[in-house]
Amino acid sequence: MIRIGIIGVSGYAGGELARILHHHKEVELTVATSRQYSGQKLSQIYPNLRGVSDLICKNLSAEEVAEQADFVFAAVPPHSAMKMIPPLLEAGSKVVDLSADFRLDSAEVYEDWYKCSHSARQYLEEAVYGLPEVNRSSISTARLVANPGCYPTSIILGLAPLLRRNLIRTGTIIADSKSGASGAGRGAKVAQLYCEVTDGIRAYGVGKHRHTPEIEQELTKLAGEELVISFSPHLLPVSRGINSTIYADLKEELTQEEMMSIFAEEYYDEPFIRLCESGVFPTTQNVRGSNYCDLGLQVDPRTERVVILSVIDNLVKGASGQAVQNMNLMCGFEEATGLDIVPLFP
Amino acid sequence: MIRIGIIGVSGYAGGELARILHHHKEVELTVATSRQYSGQKLSQIYPNLRGVSDLICKNLSAEEVAEQADFVFAAVPPHSAMKMIPPLLEAGSKVVDLSADFRLDSAEVYEDWYKCSHSARQYLEEAVYGLPEVNRSSISTARLVANPGCYPTSIILGLAPLLRRNLIRTGTIIADSKSGASGAGRGAKVAQLYCEVTDGIRAYGVGKHRHTPEIEQELTKLAGEELVISFSPHLLPVSRGINSTIYADLKEELTQEEMMSIFAEEYYDEPFIRLCESGVFPTTQNVRGSNYCDLGLQVDPRTERVVILSVIDNLVKGASGQAVQNMNLMCGFEEATGLDIVPLFP
Amino acid sequence: MIRIGIIGVSGYAGGELARILHHHKEVELTVATSRQYSGQKLSQIYPNLRGVSDLICKNLSAEEVAEQADFVFAAVPPHSAMKMIPPLLEAGSKVVDLSADFRLDSAEVYEDWYKCSHSARQYLEEAVYGLPEVNRSSISTARLVANPGCYPTSIILGLAPLLRRNLIRTGTIIADSKSGASGAGRGAKVAQLYCEVTDGIRAYGVGKHRHTPEIEQELTKLAGEELVISFSPHLLPVSRGINSTIYADLKEELTQEEMMSIFAEEYYDEPFIRLCESGVFPTTQNVRGSNYCDLGLQVDPRTERVVILSVIDNLVKGASGQAVQNMNLMCGFEEATGLDIVPLFP
Amino acid sequence: MIRIGIIGVSGYAGGELARILHHHKEVELTVATSRQYSGQKLSQIYPNLRGVSDLICKNLSAEEVAEQADFVFAAVPPHSAMKMIPPLLEAGSKVVDLSADFRLDSAEVYEDWYKCSHSARQYLEEAVYGLPEVNRSSISTARLVANPGCYPTSIILGLAPLLRRNLIRTGTIIADSKSGASGAGRGAKVAQLYCEVTDGIRAYGVGKHRHTPEIEQELTKLAGEELVISFSPHLLPVSRGINSTIYADLKEELTQEEMMSIFAEEYYDEPFIRLCESGVFPTTQNVRGSNYCDLGLQVDPRTERVVILSVIDNLVKGASGQAVQNMNLMCGFEEATGLDIVPLFP
Repeated sequence: MIRIGIIGVSGYAGGELARILHHHKEVELTVATSRQYSGQKLSQIYPNLRGVSDLICKNLSAEEVAEQADFVFAAVPPHSAMKMIPPLLEAGSKVVDLSADFRLDSAEVYEDWYKCSHSARQYLEEAVYGLPEVNRSSISTARLVANPGCYPTSIILGLAPLLRRNLIRTGTIIADSKSGASGAGRGAKVAQLYCEVTDGIRAYGVGKHRHTPEIEQELTKLAGEELVISFSPHLLPVSRGINSTIYADLKEELTQEEMMSIFAEEYYDEPFIRLCESGVFPTTQNVRGSNYCDLGLQVDPRTERVVILSVIDNLVKGASGQAVQNMNLMCGFEEATGLDIVPLFP
Repeated sequence: MIRIGIIGVSGYAGGELARILHHHKEVELTVATSRQYSGQKLSQIYPNLRGVSDLICKNLSAEEVAEQADFVFAAVPPHSAMKMIPPLLEAGSKVVDLSADFRLDSAEVYEDWYKCSHSARQYLEEAVYGLPEVNRSSISTARLVANPGCYPTSIILGLAPLLRRNLIRTGTIIADSKSGASGAGRGAKVAQLYCEVTDGIRAYGVGKHRHTPEIEQELTKLAGEELVISFSPHLLPVSRGINSTIYADLKEELTQEEMMSIFAEEYYDEPFIRLCESGVFPTTQNVRGSNYCDLGLQVDPRTERVVILSVIDNLVKGASGQAVQNMNLMCGFEEATGLDIVPLFP
Repeated sequence: MIRIGIIGVSGYAGGELARILHHHKEVELTVATSRQYSGQKLSQIYPNLRGVSDLICKNLSAEEVAEQADFVFAAVPPHSAMKMIPPLLEAGSKVVDLSADFRLDSAEVYEDWYKCSHSARQYLEEAVYGLPEVNRSSISTARLVANPGCYPTSIILGLAPLLRRNLIRTGTIIADSKSGASGAGRGAKVAQLYCEVTDGIRAYGVGKHRHTPEIEQELTKLAGEELVISFSPHLLPVSRGINSTIYADLKEELTQEEMMSIFAEEYYDEPFIRLCESGVFPTTQNVRGSNYCDLGLQVDPRTERVVILSVIDNLVKGASGQAVQNMNLMCGFEEATGLDIVPLFP
Repeated sequence: MIRIGIIGVSGYAGGELARILHHHKEVELTVATSRQYSGQKLSQIYPNLRGVSDLICKNLSAEEVAEQADFVFAAVPPHSAMKMIPPLLEAGSKVVDLSADFRLDSAEVYEDWYKCSHSARQYLEEAVYGLPEVNRSSISTARLVANPGCYPTSIILGLAPLLRRNLIRTGTIIADSKSGASGAGRGAKVAQLYCEVTDGIRAYGVGKHRHTPEIEQELTKLAGEELVISFSPHLLPVSRGINSTIYADLKEELTQEEMMSIFAEEYYDEPFIRLCESGVFPTTQNVRGSNYCDLGLQVDPRTERVVILSVIDNLVKGASGQAVQNMNLMCGFEEATGLDIVPLFP
């Protein structure tokens, strides 16, 4: 059994890691840290884990965690991750970082969008962007994986087949994304209160969201040419789930059937990509609690565009599930271990 | 007092008309028809109206309604409206039709998208598209007004200032719309059950929704040139509210401040358009129950696009409120009569 | 026009007062205070009021408020109210206090349940408990009215007819109440985040909620004998609305029809009580945004109990609407002025 | 591998059985029937099962099902179950019936509450009421188990410890229950539409719900004396989950600590009962998707009552999960097989 540590377990991604790892037969969660809830049982912070976990959260240094764990998930905020991860790596732990700190290749771009200096630049080149459907082999040999953002996961998976085959005009990409409220984390904020979120929708960070450079970086690699996109996130009255509706102009005419075939070929054998049949669009309810990314496609001959619908559970494929998928690759386990979770509907 | 009739009162738009008209000091609701609920009190169909209305719903012909009402709102489904409205007009009633039957100028386009023949083509030319912010003067003299669809209202109001001033490339318009469940009506359908809708989002009718030709027709008039758009509706776990996120490429460089000024000028004095300050995006919660359309703008210099956020209450500005606004214009009342409703938040 | 002040406008009850008073033809909102949002427009704190109110919130002393207002609503938390209200009264303002500070006749009981000493005991005797359906005449002549709690309003209105007529065993009263999240206020708390509240229900303060002594005090007066009750509040994934399901053993056999008649007689002519017909139970959706209390009754001959269903909008009849109703009585206006609001459904 | 059949798979309980059985290592789902969806893939009816199940639904007779399955779950409505189950039993299948048809010992009581005659009375005596925490040993040897109703499960589990020890006055039991909308099934009904259910709560069937005789029958057995209860169900804007708040007068004084100890002893070693620590109340979110019943207790010395909070997921412990738990007992599998599901939060 591999011993697992979670740094920053009190956020929703931390709780979700604990849920998923409970079913993973090759690993054992041995240590979980939380500054705020130090000394409390994990099942007090997450009472859904009552009777499932007896772990007590502690306030430990990176070094102390490294002693008790072979593999560490960092679920702390940006800026904290870059401070905690170097000592973990130096102590021999493998790490999946769920923050944004090691996702961008360029420290300058990071500092530009995140408005803070990067104190662990020496690891940026080594860090692998942890989207298995794109970077599977690099992930397998990495000791530091930067787990993708939730929005980027949904958008990159929706566009990869088209960019790899050079089928769309890269200057025309628009991603209109809608996310459940768990994406904002478990911090106490007026804007996230039940009454502020329920029965409505609101856009935020239009054209300015921090996930933009990460999406553009990865799409640029897939396209083989520089590109910029329009990205508009929206907050939904939903707990879990992201729906990204992605638009792009087609370079040449393609029928709906041809488009379906292209995605079917590109994602043949992917364990967590499910393609909806033509005319059916995916819904976040059907991936709830699971690591699936459901994709739907619509070629519109009137406008010569393709519209891709990409849905994930932001806490699973968009965070903790993908982190476990990355761990499986990094540790040589079967990729879907612990992730054979049937989506919960209704 | 003008006597008002509602044909097809049992749908959500019918109930909402009754709510709004209760506060209208110039009119009296004298007759309401429903085939299904004939003989029942309106307050049994809509118990929120308990103690507010004593009206009994009846199953009446158009002629019988015309005898009891000077002004009629038709809230029946497409295909029914085109049969009921001609006799009403012939009997001297003025009519606002909330269905799609008289919105399209061309019977052929109607038949193409609605898959049924049009039996009242002779009224298509006379019917005025009832968006007061665009067609105020024609509405004032009309006897038949086609009340706009909910999605088109939000989208056209978001784009009119830009098209009038020729600021965007008309071939690049994308409208990504999200609607509350009341837009689907009060009919019993599995897909609209609580458990199917809550805690999720799903796209439907991508590139094929029936509101598309209506939007394109009106935007074409505003632009002065033929255009097609991408329109993708989504179903939200929300009762009321539409958010349309609209994208277009700018013809020439414009700053955020210039864009704000243009909208402020174009909508100066409009009683139901509220412009959010720069950096703030509108939310459907803040228009709930009211006739407002709240607009937010973001110029994105990176992509040379503008993103417009347009939100309305689909049952008010998107249906019954706008219908009353049209009635006010058609009857010579002050335009906002009965519509001075403060949005309900939270 | 009477000049109105609101102390503590930033909470949900404050925003709701502004919404209701906008429609009140006899008064004008002239001053609103907020420590946290001083200098901001009310419409920035409550963007639903965009275009409705231009008022700027200020951080003012009670004396300063009294200079600018003839009538003051205190919507500050318990403990603050008892400090702000005496100077207002001394400066000649009439006051409705929405907090709990002047609801209990006994300072000792207050201190016991609220765990703090009472610094304005001299006003306890003068303060009138502001439930118009019970205390209408005393309210009319009061200068300080203690606006009832939301739960107590729903429960007392459900039981008053039975206690007045001595029909139930006073030792058997159980009130199982369910409230929307706005009852917890607009403060940032993890337990009130969207993801913590949605798609679930939880009991809290069972047998220990601070509204208990207030309910018992008023029921005791109605019954003419000391009584204690079981009171269990629950948090619902709902913005607005309280449902209280109230149980009591009947002293003697009564039929469903007799019970219906008793309530119909007792509440004859009450403008804000609506009695559901036999076999129909009220729902909070049908009072949303309005000052109504809807009541449903079920006599159960098998158990010799009566079950009363009482629903209100906690922010209206349970707070700001009732406060305006009290103001109307205190100022000699028609009782329903400004409160003729049709409930918003759906 | 035991071959499993599901009769009536298209309802929510059917879909949930498929989800749970996917993780059960001792069984294989080989046949599923649906009249309405015959010929469709199960994953078309429940797209969350896309990629999980390839099963095609068929319209089969009981005899045909018995040929393809060793063990059958009947998830058809009352009245249908009593017709389909006898031939299954006669063909040698073991059966768990999720309907109400075999829960009541007395055909007369059934006919009185369900308003239809019982056509399989000969099996009523044999059928075992399938609440493992109460009837574990009888279930183990049964070939026909009547799976309890969702409300009864929550209520009986909350009261069993008290009735077994004769601690409460049996005439004073009140169960105020609140259920998510999935309890009403997947049939298309106006009253279950999203807009009718969301943002509100409504009582229904107060004192008259069909689960009443089932609850009374089982509580009577536990108490050893005839009893009647007050039972009031309410519909919540929640997908899954039941909260039952149960009140009873104590026969003699008991402290909170004593009460906690009694429940801890009575439910010691129960795999699916989780007791909340004193002062903490359970919430349906923390059992979502799992087979747990979470219990919270409050002794109220002021009223000499105990209040028990009992929460379950109505589709799991209240239906399909409990059905699998019963199957495990009937087939000699470890009781928790396939049911080690961590609740999904948020």
